[in-house]
Amino acid sequence: MGNLSRKIALVGAGMSKFGQHFPTKRNPDLWIDAWINAVENVDNGIEPKDVDACYVGNFTADLFNHQGHLGPNMANLVGLTPKPAPRFEGACASSGIALREALLAIASGVHDVIAVCGVETMSEVPTTMVTDALSAAADTTYEYPAGATFPGLYAAIASAHFHEYGTTPEDLMRVGIKNHENGKENPYAQMQQTIKEIMESKKARLISQGQEAPEWKDEIDFLSSSANPYIASPLRLFDCSLITDGAACLFLAAEDVAKKFTDTPIWITGTGQGSAALSLHDRNSLTSFIATREASRQAYQMSGLSPNDIQIAEVHDCFTIAEILAMEDLGFYEKGKAAEAVKNGESKRDGALPINTSGGLKSKGHPVGATGAAQAVEIFKQMRGKAERNRQVKINVERALTHNLGGSGGTCVVTIYQK
Amino acid sequence: MGNLSRKIALVGAGMSKFGQHFPTKRNPDLWIDAWINAVENVDNGIEPKDVDACYVGNFTADLFNHQGHLGPNMANLVGLTPKPAPRFEGACASSGIALREALLAIASGVHDVIAVCGVETMSEVPTTMVTDALSAAADTTYEYPAGATFPGLYAAIASAHFHEYGTTPEDLMRVGIKNHENGKENPYAQMQQTIKEIMESKKARLISQGQEAPEWKDEIDFLSSSANPYIASPLRLFDCSLITDGAACLFLAAEDVAKKFTDTPIWITGTGQGSAALSLHDRNSLTSFIATREASRQAYQMSGLSPNDIQIAEVHDCFTIAEILAMEDLGFYEKGKAAEAVKNGESKRDGALPINTSGGLKSKGHPVGATGAAQAVEIFKQMRGKAERNRQVKINVERALTHNLGGSGGTCVVTIYQK
Repeated sequence: MGNLSRKIALVGAGMSKFGQHFPTKRNPDLWIDAWINAVENVDNGIEPKDVDACYVGNFTADLFNHQGHLGPNMANLVGLTPKPAPRFEGACASSGIALREALLAIASGVHDVIAVCGVETMSEVPTTMVTDALSAAADTTYEYPAGATFPGLYAAIASAHFHEYGTTPEDLMRVGIKNHENGKENPYAQMQQTIKEIMESKKARLISQGQEAPEWKDEIDFLSSSANPYIASPLRLFDCSLITDGAACLFLAAEDVAKKFTDTPIWITGTGQGSAALSLHDRNSLTSFIATREASRQAYQMSGLSPNDIQIAEVHDCFTIAEILAMEDLGFYEKGKAAEAVKNGESKRDGALPINTSGGLKSKGHPVGATGAAQAVEIFKQMRGKAERNRQVKINVERALTHNLGGSGGTCVVTIYQK
Repeated sequence: MGNLSRKIALVGAGMSKFGQHFPTKRNPDLWIDAWINAVENVDNGIEPKDVDACYVGNFTADLFNHQGHLGPNMANLVGLTPKPAPRFEGACASSGIALREALLAIASGVHDVIAVCGVETMSEVPTTMVTDALSAAADTTYEYPAGATFPGLYAAIASAHFHEYGTTPEDLMRVGIKNHENGKENPYAQMQQTIKEIMESKKARLISQGQEAPEWKDEIDFLSSSANPYIASPLRLFDCSLITDGAACLFLAAEDVAKKFTDTPIWITGTGQGSAALSLHDRNSLTSFIATREASRQAYQMSGLSPNDIQIAEVHDCFTIAEILAMEDLGFYEKGKAAEAVKNGESKRDGALPINTSGGLKSKGHPVGATGAAQAVEIFKQMRGKAERNRQVKINVERALTHNLGGSGGTCVVTIYQK
């Protein structure tokens, strides 16, 4: 593996509000929202004529919206016809792949400026069909006929992690509590409430319905109760990310043109991608994702950084257990040690290594094909000191990382950002 | 648009037999067939350890096979885990995009050798569902609810071409007759029969059933009869490509490592990609594809060649009218002049510009996501003098082109090959 032959910057990034938007908004509307938001975040402005290509990440508009061929569709909406408009897919890592391939395309010398689109509208179909569509990101030859949808697969992973490292359900709950605390501060997040606020409002609702006042001592007590039902044991409702519609947009530019757009570019100095057998039974380990280890190995090597150099990260918390695995597989913590770090508050906004300041997939939402690009939006804001409300980290972020996972670990894309 | 910063060669290419293989074979089996066939075509051999990444082109295994996330799935089958395995989609141009992005990835300096996979299994679902799945490659906001599936869209295009340039149904039939003459000579083709042979066998069958012997004078007479029913007027059954399962595999290598694999590499000197609004009503012309014009403009510019330099071409004849449009939009013939060239035999194997010596999508078959890569397989064989049976062209091919179209012209990828 060699290095990118050109230096490349992220010069603008933006996103739509994440939430359930159907039928008011669908992919075209959400993408236009994201495009406009990203354009507003380019210091010196950017126009379609400045952009050479539109790289679209989307998991399966095929199954969610009966619309394939999203590349030219999205490009046309923002005035980029007849420029190249490929679509990239790697399940929930689709726009992470679009970002990576855009970097390679600029480094190739063929393009100078690329708009990366991540987009997904999941709420157009009923929840059971969402689960069914998502299952197409796992192995549908063996796992799907056996009834293993994603909550079930990640439940198996969580159980194995509990068994091997003594991780507990409460450890997972702390990940969700932390991510909701961040999501509350993100005006683009789907759920802008802390778990505590959710608990209080649930309590108030029950009382108003004439029921007995629940005696929840704190968030952990609330999340351990029947108010937080099991989806697939040991995973409960609040261990799962959301069904979300949304889009994100990134503008990437080669060094020699980046200064046209901004004086404070965010350089992308590392990219890595790994893969694994789709089915869990074809892997050596349930508690470590080989795709994450491989992707981060490549990205660290390319950037010349090590895990200790990273100051903030957005990681792929499709389930709370996935954030624990990511913290370990990315080398931030030794295997089996991440849960303790979460408990100690190290991954909070004011901790030693803030993780998912955006709210993560758990609270910001998870429009699967848009997630990878949206992670870069948060890093862009944090590195420029522009994160909204009260979630801007206090340190000057010089080095950051995003971790975008596909399926039950079949694909991983890791990206490293530097000032 | 700049040039590729490294010189890149096609060092091996192969494909599965095209046909209707379900349930005996599905995507994994077809891809393994293609991989083995391509490995056999690498002069000095190639092994998984030599390959840096697996670039997978597939239109919609989501809808055809309820399996997304095909990248890591295909990579794992040929020993490429945990290397990068993105999937690319641009409808029927999906593996043309995979090929193009692999070129950019090698030129970027990050990878040296990439395996390109094109794969699709269409016959797993009934024909009506194939038509429905394919319609997701066109606009499903306006066209699909109006009932416009692909034969209908291309019928509108054909009608407009008839109106503007006086093209006739017989002109289209000659495209099909020519492509079947080529497909007969391709052991990997789905239909290895000429139209004349199909006519004779149909005649024999009718007679054996005690019916009157049909008085078909020649192929045109046969194709103009009720034996060749209308699908969407003016397009008849034999104007349409086939429903096919198949896969193709290409090995690409940077110049500095290409010599390890072969002494006679085929250099890829031009790549271009264009896009258009998905819906026909959003375009300025029905009789010319802006995506093709843009893709070929880029590819010609990069290679320094002009249409007159091209000696053979594989073009995207999803419908016979599409081959006529391609011949014109690629600059081989002036607008409205291609039909006459076909009539004069110029696009036949021994003509001035042989087109679709493989049999094209019409006779070789059209497993949509595999088609772009399979076009490169034919060019690889023709340029090395290795085309099977009687279809090897007599000239020494130094310069060739492939044209891979997505949907009703929403995407086009053009690739130029030189010795």
